[in-house]
Amino acid sequence: MSSKILQVGIVGATGYTGVELLRLLVGHEQVAIHVVTSNSEKDEAVSDVFPSLSGYLHLKFSEHDSPALTECDVVFFATPHATSMYKIPELLNANVRIIDLSADFRLQDAEQWQHWYGVEHAAPELLKRAVYGLPEINREQISEADLVANPGCYPTAVSLGLLPLLEEGVVDLNSLIADAKSGVSGAGRKAAMGSLFSETSETFKAYGVSGHRHLPEICQTLSLCSGQAVDITFVPHLVPMVRGIFATLYAHLQQTDIDVINIYTARYSNEPFVEVLPKGSQPDTRAVRGTNMCRIAVSQSQDSEKLVILSVIDNLVKGAAGQAIQNMNIMFGLDEVIGLNLPAIYP
Amino acid sequence: MSSKILQVGIVGATGYTGVELLRLLVGHEQVAIHVVTSNSEKDEAVSDVFPSLSGYLHLKFSEHDSPALTECDVVFFATPHATSMYKIPELLNANVRIIDLSADFRLQDAEQWQHWYGVEHAAPELLKRAVYGLPEINREQISEADLVANPGCYPTAVSLGLLPLLEEGVVDLNSLIADAKSGVSGAGRKAAMGSLFSETSETFKAYGVSGHRHLPEICQTLSLCSGQAVDITFVPHLVPMVRGIFATLYAHLQQTDIDVINIYTARYSNEPFVEVLPKGSQPDTRAVRGTNMCRIAVSQSQDSEKLVILSVIDNLVKGAAGQAIQNMNIMFGLDEVIGLNLPAIYP
Amino acid sequence: MSSKILQVGIVGATGYTGVELLRLLVGHEQVAIHVVTSNSEKDEAVSDVFPSLSGYLHLKFSEHDSPALTECDVVFFATPHATSMYKIPELLNANVRIIDLSADFRLQDAEQWQHWYGVEHAAPELLKRAVYGLPEINREQISEADLVANPGCYPTAVSLGLLPLLEEGVVDLNSLIADAKSGVSGAGRKAAMGSLFSETSETFKAYGVSGHRHLPEICQTLSLCSGQAVDITFVPHLVPMVRGIFATLYAHLQQTDIDVINIYTARYSNEPFVEVLPKGSQPDTRAVRGTNMCRIAVSQSQDSEKLVILSVIDNLVKGAAGQAIQNMNIMFGLDEVIGLNLPAIYP
Amino acid sequence: MSSKILQVGIVGATGYTGVELLRLLVGHEQVAIHVVTSNSEKDEAVSDVFPSLSGYLHLKFSEHDSPALTECDVVFFATPHATSMYKIPELLNANVRIIDLSADFRLQDAEQWQHWYGVEHAAPELLKRAVYGLPEINREQISEADLVANPGCYPTAVSLGLLPLLEEGVVDLNSLIADAKSGVSGAGRKAAMGSLFSETSETFKAYGVSGHRHLPEICQTLSLCSGQAVDITFVPHLVPMVRGIFATLYAHLQQTDIDVINIYTARYSNEPFVEVLPKGSQPDTRAVRGTNMCRIAVSQSQDSEKLVILSVIDNLVKGAAGQAIQNMNIMFGLDEVIGLNLPAIYP
Repeated sequence: MSSKILQVGIVGATGYTGVELLRLLVGHEQVAIHVVTSNSEKDEAVSDVFPSLSGYLHLKFSEHDSPALTECDVVFFATPHATSMYKIPELLNANVRIIDLSADFRLQDAEQWQHWYGVEHAAPELLKRAVYGLPEINREQISEADLVANPGCYPTAVSLGLLPLLEEGVVDLNSLIADAKSGVSGAGRKAAMGSLFSETSETFKAYGVSGHRHLPEICQTLSLCSGQAVDITFVPHLVPMVRGIFATLYAHLQQTDIDVINIYTARYSNEPFVEVLPKGSQPDTRAVRGTNMCRIAVSQSQDSEKLVILSVIDNLVKGAAGQAIQNMNIMFGLDEVIGLNLPAIYP
Repeated sequence: MSSKILQVGIVGATGYTGVELLRLLVGHEQVAIHVVTSNSEKDEAVSDVFPSLSGYLHLKFSEHDSPALTECDVVFFATPHATSMYKIPELLNANVRIIDLSADFRLQDAEQWQHWYGVEHAAPELLKRAVYGLPEINREQISEADLVANPGCYPTAVSLGLLPLLEEGVVDLNSLIADAKSGVSGAGRKAAMGSLFSETSETFKAYGVSGHRHLPEICQTLSLCSGQAVDITFVPHLVPMVRGIFATLYAHLQQTDIDVINIYTARYSNEPFVEVLPKGSQPDTRAVRGTNMCRIAVSQSQDSEKLVILSVIDNLVKGAAGQAIQNMNIMFGLDEVIGLNLPAIYP
Repeated sequence: MSSKILQVGIVGATGYTGVELLRLLVGHEQVAIHVVTSNSEKDEAVSDVFPSLSGYLHLKFSEHDSPALTECDVVFFATPHATSMYKIPELLNANVRIIDLSADFRLQDAEQWQHWYGVEHAAPELLKRAVYGLPEINREQISEADLVANPGCYPTAVSLGLLPLLEEGVVDLNSLIADAKSGVSGAGRKAAMGSLFSETSETFKAYGVSGHRHLPEICQTLSLCSGQAVDITFVPHLVPMVRGIFATLYAHLQQTDIDVINIYTARYSNEPFVEVLPKGSQPDTRAVRGTNMCRIAVSQSQDSEKLVILSVIDNLVKGAAGQAIQNMNIMFGLDEVIGLNLPAIYP
Repeated sequence: MSSKILQVGIVGATGYTGVELLRLLVGHEQVAIHVVTSNSEKDEAVSDVFPSLSGYLHLKFSEHDSPALTECDVVFFATPHATSMYKIPELLNANVRIIDLSADFRLQDAEQWQHWYGVEHAAPELLKRAVYGLPEINREQISEADLVANPGCYPTAVSLGLLPLLEEGVVDLNSLIADAKSGVSGAGRKAAMGSLFSETSETFKAYGVSGHRHLPEICQTLSLCSGQAVDITFVPHLVPMVRGIFATLYAHLQQTDIDVINIYTARYSNEPFVEVLPKGSQPDTRAVRGTNMCRIAVSQSQDSEKLVILSVIDNLVKGAAGQAIQNMNIMFGLDEVIGLNLPAIYP
């Protein structure tokens, strides 16, 4: 393990994933936060904007073009999509390693990216160079990457929930369904009528049934795990809670004499942030709130080919900032769990 | 329409379905509430226990054995399961018509009932006489019934969401999945640690994955609609909200050239409490909160056999008390919507 | 009572008070909704914007300048402040009676209005003509008014909670404190970061401690009741719920041998929408949710001059749309409770 | 600082304060959790009952009479009232130091205790020996105590909010009001109908207006600070959120030329867990959620004797488990902030 303190920068630190990075990084013993940027809050003290950080961080926001970014060992982008792709090339040239929490480098195909995000990709030559930052499948490549595309929240929960089945080739690839539910923080920290308390509390709804940007990302990952093209029915829903993703996954086994729970237990036995629950257990999002854990339960009916997999994460941690720090730890040869070993708050 | 005022009794009026019956019945112009019973609150004024009814109802709770029940035209049972089956026979003998909101007469098979509810059925001879009170399939029989088994909340949302497909025989009967989400009021008004605010807010979970009492009821209804035995994968979840059921239903069409939305629109065109949404719309539970409506949206991918159906109700209204009043209106030849034509509160 | 159907218009019907007016008016048997305006949703069907009204209202939104407004018997303004004052004069000239739910005509002093609302008043000559629409103090004047200024939500809860004490002259006027709590819907239906679910759920805060626009309105009303200038310490707070205002009011009696609860009971004995609770009762906001009731509890310590008064309303009903309809009923000689006699939803 | 690892026991670790102790203690580098007891969950793995602790604690629950308690350096009692007073004497005799989070040793007067808690005190001789564990006033005595009575949640928020005024003698002692609001977790982890989600969400209420057990505790502390008997009007309210206490405090200055904020800033300048906010700031409970901080804002009107003080804490941390650990750190000569220096989760 390196004893050098990493100099870290964060671009776009006023969104929920940005401030979650700050919360976790101020407790990370191998990290110094060197610069945080925000065009909207430039020159404001971070702790004035986020009183939860009062006493933990004594920086002011810089603007996005701050030259201090090039002095960092690693820079996190917590920006909306179609932002980081314009800035990352120059930072890579300055030998800064990048972890991009936005969607800009998640899809390997520039045309597909343009289809879903509506603008032409500004750095298509970097798409293949970017490593998809799901450590459970790409740990080796992440350790050597200079550009990591941090996965989306839904793709993390769904992919971790299904990948053992796909790697083993035991399920009907035409049977996959992901009925996914997210807390409202997934919509981000921006004024939007649809995310008001009065619009989202005491109600439940589906959205994006006809197509959601996380669908191609999920299919890309599942296809990689499977070795063949995988499609999936993906329906996201909005839950009146702040944090958490709960994915209820359905699949058909190709034969019924398979011990599925063993497949999961074996696959994840060495993973620090995936816990396979004992038979009969059912996870809830609260038990992972504020943590980097993914908890998975497998429900297999006797003599039936029908499987139900439950996979839960905190969308802002394992689905964003926590996974980004896990990736940073891997990239710099640190113990993978540093800064991420806190129990969830209950209740 | 009859102009006679119906004398109504409610047994077990201190649960959420009981008080919801009271809220709706005090505004029903053809009804007089004659007697409400509660063993726990006997002799208390109803409006002291439920201040929301202050000014609308001036009765005290009687005990369950109140002789006033036999003076009623109709008695609603809003009791826990394995309660009404002991009392209903004598009331039927007294020519009182019964609407049972509990589970006691929902399953037609006494052995199956015993399997799921854990006690021997006390009145198996009445199981066939009881009419399953889903007006959208049994309106005719309900109008002549003296014993109506009011459907469960999940079965109502799931059955209304799937029955057009099953009646038309257009889907693979092995492909059905109901991913259902309920508000916490579904757990009832009883002290239980699992239903505490601190246990259920800001979290989401599945429960009953390995088997839920509403499953056999759903299968019984769907089999009736289909004309053959139907199984379904049913996973209920708990949402941090008070009211509402949202069922996300998955099915495979047997051929892709079917206009599914037309099937739904035609099937429900004369139903006062089922609204099929236009293409692209997605319902939320808030828009039916406090109302007897079921709102259904159909999502059909082009050239794909995969269907997603969204079906929402208020679990305490169309899933319990409202449907019970709809059944009463039918049984007594009243306009079906009396007492039930109120818009939802928003926000 | 008049049997003529009133033609009603609503200007600015896409806010929460506007849609609440619609919810209540569609059930009002003496009213026809003639025109509803919204510049943002012009030409959209009302029920597309507000699915809770689907089946109850078949209008489209008109623009604010719709000539149909002059065809109305009464027009409600549910606009932001500094809007209605530009339009009301011409409607008054067209003999349309006005109920203004905004703040434009609540303060009688144009300079004070300008101080708190930041713009010069456009129709200062109408300030004296406007009647402050709190029926419990101004019923007579309301019945003859052509311009009613509907009170704010906080002023309604606080004024009804304190006015019996001030009319009787039994409290120290320097001792008054209103610690008031409001649900988030009070912030309106507009995109604002501070009202996001993720910002307002699972937290509690005060706001406007140094000065809130409802303070001068409260003081004006209390001074009127008292006959002398009254000041009050007013601290509003934000509660993570959608609807409801809870005002905890503190005052010092000038002598301890006064039976305060009798003062309240006598004062409100004929008021249809104020209920004084029996000794020892404590109200909650849920029991008035969706209703026009104000429920008040008085807590008086033995041998002590210290009083605690609890006053609760639904901010969107008695605090806005319901009180506006109550005013309309009074203005047109209708039974005061028409359209407003629905019990609260529980739970 | 001692480098010895403290052996810690917790009696009654299945309540919310007990599990919060566990969450904080598993991250405390100077502590080993030796034994946790629960009669209801005896022999269950702690992490099975509380999955949030999975991976952090590998103990099973022992019964309350476990002899392992006497092997501890310090034992925390997180039991309901009238429990610890029967067990503490024998542990003190075994030279175990005690931090009692229950109410049993908070009041110094046995008769007053009996009046409020309804049973005779079992160990009145220990009442004077017990040190009231509010470090901001009793740090010295705590460091030498073998029995610390950890303050209640409301008394912590109210006392910290008022004590600078009382110590300085600048306010009218007859003017004090504490309008306090608590999250639902304050009602504890026990099945109770009043704490159900369906009963407490989307509503706000006062309770205990006529007398709450925390009132004598508050008066005892304030009188100690003031040097004379202090009474206060205390009205607690229930907020639909899990964690947090918000106290809005009102007082009259005896003269208006006092710079109150300076008094607070000076008083708390060396306190690690009290932060006085700059003028114009207003705290919210979220910014202290999960932390041991008390944040205080002072609002002083110009030329007015009226003061408003806002004081916020997390009821389970500074109001219970966190303050208990702060006390433990002081008792054993550790750095006071160990185990307690984590930023709040936001959002």
